[in-house]
Amino acid sequence: MIQLKDLHSPADIKGLDRTELKNLAEELRAVLMKKLSAHGGHVGPNLGVVEAMVALHYVFDAPTDKLVFDVSHQTYIHKMLTGRIEAFIDPAHYDDVTGYTCPRESEYDLFEVGHTSTSIALATGLAKARDVLGGKENVVAFIGDASLGGGEALEALDYAPELGSNFIIVVNDNQRSIAENHGELYRHLEDLRNSNGTAPDNIFKALGYQYVYVREGNDIDELIRAFESVRGTDHAVVVHINTMKGAGLPVAEADKERFHYAAPFDLKSGAPLHPSGSEDYTDVFARHILDRMQADRRVIAITAGTPGAIGFTPERRKVTGKQFVDVGICEQAATAVAAGLVKGGARPVFGVMATFIQRSYDQLSQDIAINNLPAVVVDFAGGIHGIPDMTHLGFFDIAMASNIPNFVFLAPADADEYTAMLDWAIDQTEHPVFLRTPSSAVTHSGRAVNMDFFRYDVVSRGGSVAIIGAGDFFAMASEAAEILKKKGVEVTLINPRILSHLDTECLDSLKTYKTVITLEDGITDGGFGQKVAAYLGCAGPAVHVLGLKKEFLDRYDAERVLADNGLTPQQIVAIVVKD
Amino acid sequence: MIQLKDLHSPADIKGLDRTELKNLAEELRAVLMKKLSAHGGHVGPNLGVVEAMVALHYVFDAPTDKLVFDVSHQTYIHKMLTGRIEAFIDPAHYDDVTGYTCPRESEYDLFEVGHTSTSIALATGLAKARDVLGGKENVVAFIGDASLGGGEALEALDYAPELGSNFIIVVNDNQRSIAENHGELYRHLEDLRNSNGTAPDNIFKALGYQYVYVREGNDIDELIRAFESVRGTDHAVVVHINTMKGAGLPVAEADKERFHYAAPFDLKSGAPLHPSGSEDYTDVFARHILDRMQADRRVIAITAGTPGAIGFTPERRKVTGKQFVDVGICEQAATAVAAGLVKGGARPVFGVMATFIQRSYDQLSQDIAINNLPAVVVDFAGGIHGIPDMTHLGFFDIAMASNIPNFVFLAPADADEYTAMLDWAIDQTEHPVFLRTPSSAVTHSGRAVNMDFFRYDVVSRGGSVAIIGAGDFFAMASEAAEILKKKGVEVTLINPRILSHLDTECLDSLKTYKTVITLEDGITDGGFGQKVAAYLGCAGPAVHVLGLKKEFLDRYDAERVLADNGLTPQQIVAIVVKD
Repeated sequence: MIQLKDLHSPADIKGLDRTELKNLAEELRAVLMKKLSAHGGHVGPNLGVVEAMVALHYVFDAPTDKLVFDVSHQTYIHKMLTGRIEAFIDPAHYDDVTGYTCPRESEYDLFEVGHTSTSIALATGLAKARDVLGGKENVVAFIGDASLGGGEALEALDYAPELGSNFIIVVNDNQRSIAENHGELYRHLEDLRNSNGTAPDNIFKALGYQYVYVREGNDIDELIRAFESVRGTDHAVVVHINTMKGAGLPVAEADKERFHYAAPFDLKSGAPLHPSGSEDYTDVFARHILDRMQADRRVIAITAGTPGAIGFTPERRKVTGKQFVDVGICEQAATAVAAGLVKGGARPVFGVMATFIQRSYDQLSQDIAINNLPAVVVDFAGGIHGIPDMTHLGFFDIAMASNIPNFVFLAPADADEYTAMLDWAIDQTEHPVFLRTPSSAVTHSGRAVNMDFFRYDVVSRGGSVAIIGAGDFFAMASEAAEILKKKGVEVTLINPRILSHLDTECLDSLKTYKTVITLEDGITDGGFGQKVAAYLGCAGPAVHVLGLKKEFLDRYDAERVLADNGLTPQQIVAIVVKD
Repeated sequence: MIQLKDLHSPADIKGLDRTELKNLAEELRAVLMKKLSAHGGHVGPNLGVVEAMVALHYVFDAPTDKLVFDVSHQTYIHKMLTGRIEAFIDPAHYDDVTGYTCPRESEYDLFEVGHTSTSIALATGLAKARDVLGGKENVVAFIGDASLGGGEALEALDYAPELGSNFIIVVNDNQRSIAENHGELYRHLEDLRNSNGTAPDNIFKALGYQYVYVREGNDIDELIRAFESVRGTDHAVVVHINTMKGAGLPVAEADKERFHYAAPFDLKSGAPLHPSGSEDYTDVFARHILDRMQADRRVIAITAGTPGAIGFTPERRKVTGKQFVDVGICEQAATAVAAGLVKGGARPVFGVMATFIQRSYDQLSQDIAINNLPAVVVDFAGGIHGIPDMTHLGFFDIAMASNIPNFVFLAPADADEYTAMLDWAIDQTEHPVFLRTPSSAVTHSGRAVNMDFFRYDVVSRGGSVAIIGAGDFFAMASEAAEILKKKGVEVTLINPRILSHLDTECLDSLKTYKTVITLEDGITDGGFGQKVAAYLGCAGPAVHVLGLKKEFLDRYDAERVLADNGLTPQQIVAIVVKD
């Protein structure tokens, strides 16, 4: 029997017999539970695939054989088996690894992946390269946890068998999305499970795949048998494995949605170790929209498979009735459904993570904006205080969405402005609206909200310096203004609110100023400040455009990034003093 | 029998008997052929659905019943039947209608649609609104011509039956994409055709649809029978109709690819009426890439269903062998396949229309850029001289792609620079590259190309005015500089070449200038000039950022749009003279 600390590569498990493999799987699961409960992470997805990962690495020869993991939040066991066990058994090293596959960490990880539904297409590229360059390796895409219903996955599912060569898709069917599954594909998978893989009208066979069903996807023997049967195949195969999300941890098996991803928790009770009592913006959003829905059946909330991320907890979903749409992790369809709902007389509000709305760039443009349909898109976890993982960054949304014609891009500075903007967005029928939810703590300014959102809010006027602080960064602008005031420097303090359109009247009033500073919680390239700089480019003031550099960051410290980009009140003050 | 000129609305055909309907269809086809041959347009798609459109409007009651047409380039007959016959029978009115559904024209047209694969999701929104608001109408999505394989369509195909209410999809199976079909779905449709709809593993049944097959999709009787059988259904239905692309026009039936869309042509011979002998950039691209492919099997060209649009004619495709990938109209998969190909050791070059690469924003960012994979994406029909239809505009690509971290966005000013950039992009392995193909006539400057593309090319230096003309607009900058020179004003003339990164050394050399003018063939918002303006925002020169306004234009006159945006040499000269 191998000691975990001696587990350096998959070669170390090749010689184990079945009992040893099973014992190893249980040891890995125990280690995983200990780390997950202390550290947090994707609980259910990883516990569900312990055996599958062991069997994959037992049967296939990575890194020669190419394993591509969809969404890749279920690769903790894969990491343990490929030279990174220390990051799981030694708490001092817990943070040595990311939560996703990461080529910077290991040659066993082929791609940085965090969005769903990419694995089959990525693997298709690998298989095509192999076929052209003369390789013989197996190419395996491991997909599940609701990723299969995404358009990118379905496009490639359709295309891959045309290669006519070795191509293996493992469909990890844990019977779930993050929340409940949506879409007929999942009902179809259920039919296949219920019939031990024999249900008629098999979609994989329809698309030209050999189909292999594994009834016990947490049984190493069955898994090895299935994987061995397809290893070295000369055509496209789907291995459909029926796994249990959260397997081995009773609280995770019982509440699969809450334990999809969890912060540190008590292993027995499942209770969070550091309960957060504070209100957050997902609650503000969901409560407000739910009120609107109950008052007006035309108001329909939409999610693309992440209801929790927009505050629509299972309890809230229960009372929404027909007015809640979850299309599964299909942002493109969600966006187009919103367009159709508007055309049909409804008032849709599509809540979505800033990082995931990227999938819908074309649908925002074509389905909504060209048709100038007043759909409301509200994004979450935008800006530097969103999610600090490279694959889930939230600070590209301003550059992405604010440059699409017809869209009104709004960024509120506090909760009062936020709910006022939500109401305005729902009530007006002239413009598509993209509303960025703050990622800061919920605050209430108490200021009356001027509902003419095409105008900047000039909070105080004076001096020859203007600081324009957008959204979450208005607080930083205020703070800098306060410091300057104490130094005797009067400042014009502006909350622009709208980032897609310039308030030229307001900007014209700044033409005689000495200095104009713009602050935005996103990359400066393609953003708000550059528009201001261009508008004022032939006028008098020195314009300083502050925001984030155009780069992918990983597991960053937000305060440090802000300082690196000159985004602290003190640095802003220094610009003013120097100018 | 109704006279065509008296055809005002679908009500006018409800009372016709079958013989009259068939005669009407033949009359409409004859009118269509006459207009198409004289005016150009989507020939094959429209000729193939003459009977289907007549039958649809005979059976369903638009606009109460909602008809959503995918891609909508096949709606000419629909337009004839819904009050717009004059635009087809009277040459003086040929241009009264757009080539796509257009709500500005008619209440029978629900959405502006030009990209593929949107109809099912849009219709799902309409159906959901109906269900919530209490309507009873039929909702019909009409999809085909290779649109069904796109991710947005497949996402919605999966979701729609979950509504559990009336939902009708007509799959117009004309056995083609623009070029040959790709993807297993089309092989599956072939199986269904060959078995008169009875092949096993029916994908539509797998996804919960009732399935109805129409063997003769150009037979009005069969079509009416099928449509009547599903009208008023309380669940989701797919009606699979087998039609003939180009039906009734021998040259179009014989060469389906060339007659997918055609400029004016001779009805008998099919020969173009205004043959264009001049070289264009699709030829430059395809010839050059083909040379590279033949010299190096690692070089692989990718298309997403539009090989002709990137110069890969059927003749060229024949010699590419395994080194050519057509994934069908699936830009997302194509982009991810490119990422996989790089990882597998190949050098992929994905050629794509500027308007269609929008579908891949997330894949450009996540699959390619985060992984910093040196894939090469080359877009076509970008800028104001691209396609002047609202749904196919090409002047958003700079704002979209140049703000994605890691991507190097290049815009060549002539053919020599273009092929040099292609070579550089393929040969280097450090950066993902997005290369914008010029849309102007092919020119050769004869200047040596400086291969350090991170540096601007300062073509001439002098005076206190700099004109920085990007890509296609470098010629405009040159022309303005020439005029100014004649007026005795020396100008520094710059071809920036790279639009994603600033050449700060070059820009620093302009800080003492009086005037800097940037020109770009795209919207200024989010574009290149605003970056320059922000960089020089605290320096001396007045910066004028010239480019296009952020707006959707339709069937515009390019010269007029340029003038409206101050983009003529004379207007540029006027700025310099005034400053």
